[in-house]
Amino acid sequence: MVRVNGLEGVVVAETELSLVDGQQGRLLFRGYDAADLAVHRTFEEVAHLLWRGHLPTEAERVALERELREYRALPPEVDAVVRALPADRDMMSVLRTAVSALGVTRDWPPAVDDAIRLTAVLPTVIAARAARLAGEEPVAPNPDLGHTANYLYMLRRGQVPAEAEVRTLEAYLVITMEHGLNASTFAGRVVTSTQSDVVSAMTAALGAMKGPLHGGAPSEVMTMLEEIGSEDAAEAWLRAALERGERLMGFGHRVYKTQDPRARALRDVVARFTGADPHFALAVRVEQEALRLLAEYKPGRQLYTNVEYWAAAILRSVGLPKPLYTPTFCCSRMVGWTAHVLEQAAHNRLIRPQSEYVGPLTE
Amino acid sequence: MVRVNGLEGVVVAETELSLVDGQQGRLLFRGYDAADLAVHRTFEEVAHLLWRGHLPTEAERVALERELREYRALPPEVDAVVRALPADRDMMSVLRTAVSALGVTRDWPPAVDDAIRLTAVLPTVIAARAARLAGEEPVAPNPDLGHTANYLYMLRRGQVPAEAEVRTLEAYLVITMEHGLNASTFAGRVVTSTQSDVVSAMTAALGAMKGPLHGGAPSEVMTMLEEIGSEDAAEAWLRAALERGERLMGFGHRVYKTQDPRARALRDVVARFTGADPHFALAVRVEQEALRLLAEYKPGRQLYTNVEYWAAAILRSVGLPKPLYTPTFCCSRMVGWTAHVLEQAAHNRLIRPQSEYVGPLTE
Repeated sequence: MVRVNGLEGVVVAETELSLVDGQQGRLLFRGYDAADLAVHRTFEEVAHLLWRGHLPTEAERVALERELREYRALPPEVDAVVRALPADRDMMSVLRTAVSALGVTRDWPPAVDDAIRLTAVLPTVIAARAARLAGEEPVAPNPDLGHTANYLYMLRRGQVPAEAEVRTLEAYLVITMEHGLNASTFAGRVVTSTQSDVVSAMTAALGAMKGPLHGGAPSEVMTMLEEIGSEDAAEAWLRAALERGERLMGFGHRVYKTQDPRARALRDVVARFTGADPHFALAVRVEQEALRLLAEYKPGRQLYTNVEYWAAAILRSVGLPKPLYTPTFCCSRMVGWTAHVLEQAAHNRLIRPQSEYVGPLTE
Repeated sequence: MVRVNGLEGVVVAETELSLVDGQQGRLLFRGYDAADLAVHRTFEEVAHLLWRGHLPTEAERVALERELREYRALPPEVDAVVRALPADRDMMSVLRTAVSALGVTRDWPPAVDDAIRLTAVLPTVIAARAARLAGEEPVAPNPDLGHTANYLYMLRRGQVPAEAEVRTLEAYLVITMEHGLNASTFAGRVVTSTQSDVVSAMTAALGAMKGPLHGGAPSEVMTMLEEIGSEDAAEAWLRAALERGERLMGFGHRVYKTQDPRARALRDVVARFTGADPHFALAVRVEQEALRLLAEYKPGRQLYTNVEYWAAAILRSVGLPKPLYTPTFCCSRMVGWTAHVLEQAAHNRLIRPQSEYVGPLTE
C-alpha cells in the first residue's frame, strides 16, 4: 500500500504523445519539437500527428481539413441546449454542457471521428454563444478558411482575419495542444478507463479545466499588461509589485526549470509575423524589464518567462476578451485530451485508487 | 517516482465517509453499520449523515426533507435541455447533460445546498425523460411523499407506491449511497481538486459511471433471473451455465472476501417487507441453488452473493426497466459523490499524477 497525497510523482500512464522535459526546457509531440511545430505547422497537421501518430501526407491533410470543416456546424440539439442556458452561465459551463449534449459515433472503443467532431465544434459553440450574448445572430462557419482562421472569423461575425493574427493564434493553439498528464487530461483518462465514451471523458476534462487551480489560463498576465498600460510605465510598476512581495504573473513554471520552450516559440512567432503591434511592443518591453528585475530581486531563482505570458500577449492582440481565454485554451487542448482518450483505450485498465478510512469505528 | 498501473493499492485520499472492510464483510458510513442504516433509516436521514457528519435531529430531518422537496422540480433550463436531446440518447447521457445544465450556488468551496439540489433533481430528470419517451407528459413531484416514494410515484405517472416497495427500494438506495473510492467518485474528486464546482465534478462522476467497467449495475443479474424464469428451472439452468464455464452474475466481489454486507441487508429487508412476491421467491430459490452449486463446482472459492444480486431483485420487483438501473444507482450514489466533493474541498490538494513518455525522441 502506497500513500501519495495529490499523486505527485506517481506515474499512472505511459504515453507516446508528449515529453515534457523540464530540466532541458524541451517539449516533444510524438518526437517532434513542439516549438518547431508551432512555428511551421498548421493546427490540422499537428492534430493529425497527435491523433494518428504521424504528420499527414498531402492527401491526409486535405482529408482531415475536410472532416474538421464538415463538423463545424452545431448539431441542432447542441444549438438548442446552448440556447437554453441562462445568459449568466459562464462559458466553461456552456462548453461542458454543449459537449455533453453531443452524441458519439460509438461508445467503445472511442473513435478518431468523434475526436474530430469534438474539436471541430468547440469554436462554433464559443462563437455562437458570444454572438447571442451580444444580442446578435451567430454567423455560419466559413468553409474557405482553416480551423484557426474560421474561429476568428466567427468571433468577429464574418470578418476575415489578417494573416499575422491567424499565424500567431495558430502557434498558440498548436503549442498548447498537449502537455502530458495534468488534472483535466487525467480526469478524462479516469473516465475513459471505465470504458465510458469520449464525450463523457471530455465533459470531465472540461469540468476540471474550469477549476482555477488547473492553471494554464493566461488572464492574470493580461490583467498585468493592462494595468501597466505603456512601455514607459513598465519598470516602475514591476518594481513596485516586487517591493510589495507580489509574484509577477507569467514568469516561472512548476516543471520548466529553464526557459519554457512554449514561451520561446510564441515569442519567435510574434517576432516573425507581427510588425509594429503596440500590444507586442509592450509585451516585449515588460518581459525585458521583468527578467532584469527578477534577477535583481530574486537572484538565483532562475525565473523565466512561461507560456502564459506570450499566450496572453497573443490572445490580447487578436482581440479575444478575457472570459474567452480558458475556453480558447480548451479548443486546442481538446486535441491532446482526445488523443489521450484514444491512447488510454488502446491499453486500457480501470483507474481505481483507494481511500483510507479515518472516521469513527463504532457509534 | 512510483509507477502504479491503474493506481491499484495507492491511497490518494483520507475519508471519514465509509469503511469498506472486505475481510470482515463490513461497510460503515461514518462509523454506522450501513446494513443497519439501510434497514432502519430513511434516504434523507442517511444523506444527512453523509453530508453533515451526523444523523439528523428531528428538526434537521424535517429541514432536509423540506429542502429536498423544494428542489425536486426541474429548473426551466434543465427541462429545456432534456427536451432538446434526441430520443435515442441513452439515459446516462441525458443525466450527465441535465446535471451539467444546472447552475451552482457558488463555485468554491462547494455548498451542501448544491449537493441537495443535485440529489433532489436527479429522480425528476429520469422520470420526466422516461415519461416523454413513452409519449406522455411527466407528472409533477408529489410534496406529500418522501424522496424514494416520490421517485416511484413520478415513474408511475402519479400512482402512489405500496409501503413494501418504498421500503425495499429505499434500502437499496441507502446501502448503495457510498462505497469509498471507485472510478466515478475518484473522477469527481480529481475535478474538485482543481477548485472546480460541484456540477463539474458530478458530470465527471456520471460520465465515469456510464462505463461498463465501472460495475455496480445489476442488469446482468436481472437478465439471468429472467432467463431462469421459474423456481423449478433454477438448478438445471445454473448447472448448465457452470458446465459451460460461465460466471454466475451476482456472486463474488472484488473486495468482499466474505458475505457482502449490502447483499445481506437487502435480503433482510426483502424478507421483512415483502410477502409472497413471486420475484423474490424466485430470487431466494436461485440464490440457494447458486450457492450450493458454486460450492460444488468451485470448492474453496468462497463465492458469496453480492449487492447486485439483491439490487436486481428489488429493482425488478418495483417494476424498474433495465435501462433505468444505472441511472437509479446514480440517484443514490449522488449523495456519496457529493459528500466526497465536500470532503475533498475541505482538505484540498490538486490531484495531478504523471505520465511517462515512451514515444520517439527525435524525428
